Amino acid sequence: MSQLRAHFRAIDNASATHDLEEVVYDHEGSLLEVFHPLAPLRERSAQDWKDLFGQRAGSMDLVERSGVWGKLEWVLPQIPREHVVTLGEGWNPLLPAPRTAARLGLSDVRLKLCGTTHTGSFKDLGMTVLVSWVNHLVCTGAKIRAVACASTGDTSAALAAYAAAAGLPAIVFLPADKVSLAQLIQPVANGAHVLALDTDFDGCMKVVQELTQDKSIYLANSKNSLRIEGQKTVSIETVQQLGWTAPDWFVIPGGNLGNVSALAKGLDLMYDLGLLSGKRPRIAVAQAAAADPLVKSFEKGLAPLEAQTARTTLASAIRIGNPVSFPKAIDALKRYEGVAESVSEDALSDAAARGDLEGFYHCPHTGVALGALEQLVAKGTIRSGESVVVISTAHGLKFSEFKTGYHEGKLAGVESRLANRVARIAPTYAAVQDELKRRLG
Amino acid sequence: MSQLRAHFRAIDNASATHDLEEVVYDHEGSLLEVFHPLAPLRERSAQDWKDLFGQRAGSMDLVERSGVWGKLEWVLPQIPREHVVTLGEGWNPLLPAPRTAARLGLSDVRLKLCGTTHTGSFKDLGMTVLVSWVNHLVCTGAKIRAVACASTGDTSAALAAYAAAAGLPAIVFLPADKVSLAQLIQPVANGAHVLALDTDFDGCMKVVQELTQDKSIYLANSKNSLRIEGQKTVSIETVQQLGWTAPDWFVIPGGNLGNVSALAKGLDLMYDLGLLSGKRPRIAVAQAAAADPLVKSFEKGLAPLEAQTARTTLASAIRIGNPVSFPKAIDALKRYEGVAESVSEDALSDAAARGDLEGFYHCPHTGVALGALEQLVAKGTIRSGESVVVISTAHGLKFSEFKTGYHEGKLAGVESRLANRVARIAPTYAAVQDELKRRLG
Repeated sequence: MSQLRAHFRAIDNASATHDLEEVVYDHEGSLLEVFHPLAPLRERSAQDWKDLFGQRAGSMDLVERSGVWGKLEWVLPQIPREHVVTLGEGWNPLLPAPRTAARLGLSDVRLKLCGTTHTGSFKDLGMTVLVSWVNHLVCTGAKIRAVACASTGDTSAALAAYAAAAGLPAIVFLPADKVSLAQLIQPVANGAHVLALDTDFDGCMKVVQELTQDKSIYLANSKNSLRIEGQKTVSIETVQQLGWTAPDWFVIPGGNLGNVSALAKGLDLMYDLGLLSGKRPRIAVAQAAAADPLVKSFEKGLAPLEAQTARTTLASAIRIGNPVSFPKAIDALKRYEGVAESVSEDALSDAAARGDLEGFYHCPHTGVALGALEQLVAKGTIRSGESVVVISTAHGLKFSEFKTGYHEGKLAGVESRLANRVARIAPTYAAVQDELKRRLG
Repeated sequence: MSQLRAHFRAIDNASATHDLEEVVYDHEGSLLEVFHPLAPLRERSAQDWKDLFGQRAGSMDLVERSGVWGKLEWVLPQIPREHVVTLGEGWNPLLPAPRTAARLGLSDVRLKLCGTTHTGSFKDLGMTVLVSWVNHLVCTGAKIRAVACASTGDTSAALAAYAAAAGLPAIVFLPADKVSLAQLIQPVANGAHVLALDTDFDGCMKVVQELTQDKSIYLANSKNSLRIEGQKTVSIETVQQLGWTAPDWFVIPGGNLGNVSALAKGLDLMYDLGLLSGKRPRIAVAQAAAADPLVKSFEKGLAPLEAQTARTTLASAIRIGNPVSFPKAIDALKRYEGVAESVSEDALSDAAARGDLEGFYHCPHTGVALGALEQLVAKGTIRSGESVVVISTAHGLKFSEFKTGYHEGKLAGVESRLANRVARIAPTYAAVQDELKRRLG
């Protein structure tokens, strides 16, 4: 088999390329993507790829069993496996929601639970790739002193954990006074250099961009296209879990939209290499109504981005009015006959709570996706009898205040129709029997 | 192969047996265990068992791929697989901590991360078995109206999630005014009937014991020995991940001690069936000094239990002075040349924080285990060059207050030697460069 090598290229100019060894995040202002030449990948047949990935799924080797690194040839083929930094990411459960499917008249609804993972969100999938590659560069002599991002959430948590495992310093920038220690406690615990700046989030982004002009500080924000290579395994792994078949629909929450482009990029590769063929799945991007620039574009026939000032939303990780990966997401919607749907705070909260009654513990972003699913079925866009995979992006344990607020009826603009109240009763057998008779019949 | 069937038997009287179909939790006051007759299991060779379990580890079928149900014949052989209620439990990452190993002079230290799972703790392993079996009983006509437990933590979370998935009502009892909604929010979200009684925890236990005399309410507390059958897969899975070899030591935090007896029970079966042979691993049980009846017994040569009034500890899930599974744990320590070690609040907190610097996010119970590991190495009990697997019981995301309290230096009796403080600086390139020069050199 020929040597496999991926490289960076500009998304709007295939001849503008850079080696992955270069510390580069864009090409004259144009976004980069990691490109995998198809010819050498095609030297292995579709069935051989399926067999290889199937065999690795049961491996006890940490790198092979990783959901990301089990697909190393499709992700970052030139990395030596001893430089990989893995925390057991991937192989997230794909669990059925049969009562939801029955209620909506669908043949199958499954949740891809990307939050059941080391740092509690899907960001692990991308961060293992970025940190592994930086680790490789450092191991081969590059002068990189640290990895850095401006983030107050899942990105900084994943960056700090993987950097700590690799023994690389991580730097996290955030606006002073606007973020609680609880929101930052994962990177703090993982020993990141957490720097609170007397400015807002845009001010932090400005500083991190300036700082990473110095190529010894490696940028880990979503502008870095390496992370997409790990995130794209979410669709590959899901299709593998379904016996190398695709569902009729993927429903995925979207903010910065990198995850949407990644989902499509994973599907692309399976079609390009023959692991999937025939009818393509469709993609529904779910946005909070408070931050829905993609929905507005979709409603105007995929019109150019009109940046919004995002309003507050319970789905805090997708509160983004000017998404970095907008152009890639538009391309993805074109290739996969995509739609975009806005969901209110009230609807996302009820949808998450309704899902929890089937044994899940959904984060608000998954609530956005489930709310969009309900609305798209009601509109007839997703049709009776179709099958749906919903991408759940984080673990509900990261959102205890959302959960308690809902069940206490204290979330602004949320009616909490499904609130479950704790009953207070006398500590006697008789009192308990009475209560249970009332509840269980 | 002969029909495999497990049954209940009293731990101190092998002839006192009950069918698993019976709703029974003890035999004339003696604890029960689930017993698997060995002769039919031995009809398959050790290599055949390894091959079978190895093949299932890579299966895309939800039941086969479950870490628990992939070992169905060893867990609950008579359950029809269509009655299994799985949420993707098991196959928790076994991640190396090479810097810890080097610091302590050990050949290998690995963390078995049982908190990277659906409800965030190892309780999922046992609860899938209990709820699946109740589901089977209900599906075959038993009149069971609900499953119930008295718990304020991980047990109620796991019970409520699995019961919700199965569509079975769950009842959770807790003392009114002593537990915050945040501690209970998982069962609340999963739709459990949460009943706050005007009494203390013992009062709740009394009510649940009384209530479950009525066999239509199934007891899910740790007295129920079905849960051990799922929990015992933790040692089987770990040994499988290590290529069917055992480490020199397992270190495990202990409260009610069911997990200790389960760990040993999994090892027993591998020795009985020839999957392991030769030198046995040793077991170190780590207890918080605030609740260490097993340590006191160990120090007196495995003396009978002297129940304690457990004091407050950060390791709240193991704050148990009168452990239900004490007799089973003593047996386990005898078979596996076990030791027991007490760890202070200060030591458990530092040990957790030190582990986090290697990319983990440890709960306080794992801190107890890591503190015990450090102490046992210092004492020479665990010797230079030995290999250790530490059982991590829950995800740190369940303990945000422990994490923030540590790094803010606000935990009583804890010095927070490794606190990582957030730096506040001016939002300029120059100020950031100065700070980084100071930190990174």
